[in-house]
Amino acid sequence: MSSWIEIPANSDFTLDNIPFGIGSTNGKPRAATRIGDKVIDLDALQAAGLFASINLPDGIFSNKVLNDFIELGKPITNAVRTRLQELFAADNGEFRDNEALRVDAIRNAKEVQMHMPVRVGDYTDFYSSREHATNVGTMFRDPNNALLPNWLHIPVGYHGRASSIVISGTPLHRPKGQTKADDADAPTFGPSRLLDFELEMAFVVGKSNALGTSVSVEDAEEHIFGMVIFNDWSARDIQKWEYVPLGPFLAKNFGSSISPWIVTMEALAPFRSASPKQEPKVLPYLEMKKDHNFDISLEAIIETESGALKTVSNSNFRHMYWSMAQQLAHHTVNGCNMNVGDMCASGTISGPTPDSYGSMLELTWRGTKPIAMPDGSERKFIQDGDSVIMKAFCEKDGKRVGFGEVKTKILPAV
Amino acid sequence: MSSWIEIPANSDFTLDNIPFGIGSTNGKPRAATRIGDKVIDLDALQAAGLFASINLPDGIFSNKVLNDFIELGKPITNAVRTRLQELFAADNGEFRDNEALRVDAIRNAKEVQMHMPVRVGDYTDFYSSREHATNVGTMFRDPNNALLPNWLHIPVGYHGRASSIVISGTPLHRPKGQTKADDADAPTFGPSRLLDFELEMAFVVGKSNALGTSVSVEDAEEHIFGMVIFNDWSARDIQKWEYVPLGPFLAKNFGSSISPWIVTMEALAPFRSASPKQEPKVLPYLEMKKDHNFDISLEAIIETESGALKTVSNSNFRHMYWSMAQQLAHHTVNGCNMNVGDMCASGTISGPTPDSYGSMLELTWRGTKPIAMPDGSERKFIQDGDSVIMKAFCEKDGKRVGFGEVKTKILPAV
Repeated sequence: MSSWIEIPANSDFTLDNIPFGIGSTNGKPRAATRIGDKVIDLDALQAAGLFASINLPDGIFSNKVLNDFIELGKPITNAVRTRLQELFAADNGEFRDNEALRVDAIRNAKEVQMHMPVRVGDYTDFYSSREHATNVGTMFRDPNNALLPNWLHIPVGYHGRASSIVISGTPLHRPKGQTKADDADAPTFGPSRLLDFELEMAFVVGKSNALGTSVSVEDAEEHIFGMVIFNDWSARDIQKWEYVPLGPFLAKNFGSSISPWIVTMEALAPFRSASPKQEPKVLPYLEMKKDHNFDISLEAIIETESGALKTVSNSNFRHMYWSMAQQLAHHTVNGCNMNVGDMCASGTISGPTPDSYGSMLELTWRGTKPIAMPDGSERKFIQDGDSVIMKAFCEKDGKRVGFGEVKTKILPAV
Repeated sequence: MSSWIEIPANSDFTLDNIPFGIGSTNGKPRAATRIGDKVIDLDALQAAGLFASINLPDGIFSNKVLNDFIELGKPITNAVRTRLQELFAADNGEFRDNEALRVDAIRNAKEVQMHMPVRVGDYTDFYSSREHATNVGTMFRDPNNALLPNWLHIPVGYHGRASSIVISGTPLHRPKGQTKADDADAPTFGPSRLLDFELEMAFVVGKSNALGTSVSVEDAEEHIFGMVIFNDWSARDIQKWEYVPLGPFLAKNFGSSISPWIVTMEALAPFRSASPKQEPKVLPYLEMKKDHNFDISLEAIIETESGALKTVSNSNFRHMYWSMAQQLAHHTVNGCNMNVGDMCASGTISGPTPDSYGSMLELTWRGTKPIAMPDGSERKFIQDGDSVIMKAFCEKDGKRVGFGEVKTKILPAV
């Protein structure tokens, strides 16, 4: 399909994508979509009557977040996406030939400030890459018993901090906290010395379930609106000291970064893929009757303060042992209620080869194999002034649907 | 001080209290306070001009939650509380002599449906009772090394689920989940067999801090609006199998129950008490320069379906090793941002004697010492049809300030 809006070669934002986000040019956040290098103001399109055939509340796109729009349900949100594909198609003049509206509604992506697309009520982080869990278990426990006994039975997850999830472009300060050297008697306090990224994807809940009810694996994708790239920043030294017995806390909650555009499950549908074989057999409530994984190419890049760039990881979401459908079925099997806008991250997405590991911890194997940077420096973990960029896209049969990027600069500790 | 509204002997809701909550009689939630057995509609009082001397936005008390009111800050919220004490005083006729307003604004507590007082953005659960941590460590690990190495240095905490925090009176279904017997090869799925309460208190954040900033121990109480009773329901068998290495998840997030009235820090001020001596010395960012604990008597009661009542625990919040001020300072020392309405629970509040333990796990010592109920039955953990009631109050020099209760009935698994 071609569009009257220019779509550069290798753009993530094709007519097959049509993601949703919140952008502003004049300080007023608005729901928007993106095509090529243009951001389209959906509020302006609605005001011009271009969604008249869809049962949309007035002003739904002038909200500061997408929660109320997503809450309308897939019949409505999918109708909006399909209508946008129609309006952007080369042979459709409804929008193309309305010059006043083009001026009003179309902005260059570089001029648009993106904001958090949803108000995240609760955020959960899973731990669903077998390769990642195996690498961590090998480093910190026993290489011969790297996976803990529950790992192959449970999509292990834990609650994270929703308030500190920030949009791409928001710098974060290196966190301070308690750490303790193995040979020290007591902990000390100061800036983390082992600051790391974790290359993850997250899904956004699109349909609530009431407290006391569960969502089955079969129905799970109906409860997922779409996905974003998720950088689960981690302070390894703080985590090591604090995490027993109740899990990571200050090592994670100083900030997590997401890409601004939510790519819908409908846009991702052509890139569905099989999960790795699950052996031993999972319990019935976790059984999958079709493919629930997705083939999403992932890249993590370190950019030094002087602008030197190095791709440090190339991974793929299809390696995940546990699917999003299984994660959501597990999360709700006890009756836990999920709300629209809630976010569930995948856990670090490490592939089978050392260049596909999703964290510096694994890539440098606890700092024993530093990465050489193009400017001659080396990295064991992330330094002040570094930015971490993560990219994600799907490509198949000439179709491309991507997420753009999440980029975060690390500032010195306060 | 006496009031023209009757305050029964031993009422938690004296003129010294004046808590805040959300109640409705006709389906419309309104901010309210309580005195004796009466609930007072604050929206009606504002409409009648009784808060004219305070800079309050119109309609602030008609919101469904207190977040916007709390956000106004302590100078305003304390002025409202002080004004209410003035209006309720026996010698003040402004409200007392306005019959139409009395009819409009005063309701019997039994006729009022209480609702969640705040929208909880994020919820954190601490683990701050030394006795509780020691009991758990003794049962599950080594009695001679019951406390993990970090426990005396860190107010250990983890993120919980905000969406499933419910108000007193909301029944919860027994959760289902994976459990594994020690001698079994594989886990099985079904209703939890070891459902437990945890007797806790929680504080409500009253002042936000921006991402990247910290709150000191000295300033922490300025960031706390008030407290509620918190029942941190726990499925011990689910937790045992799932919690390594990332902490409790489905064992907790099926529901947590709170008492409806937020008792302010100002009402609790007369009951300030010292913390247990902290040895080894804490790191400087956790040092306390004054007393930050509170003397709050706690009681947990089991009510069987047929109405038999048994008090199973009498504890006290003053036993807590880590204070709320230390918890909040620790939580933000890495720059984690807190928002108004966020909730932080204390962790199970166990005292030094076996009758002051705050969970069935400890009270029955893993079920080895069942509790005899008045109807001849016995309890190792909580059964379907049981209700758990928790009460909390402060009493000193003739002053009483209390929280009322949180009561939750457990329904069979769905």
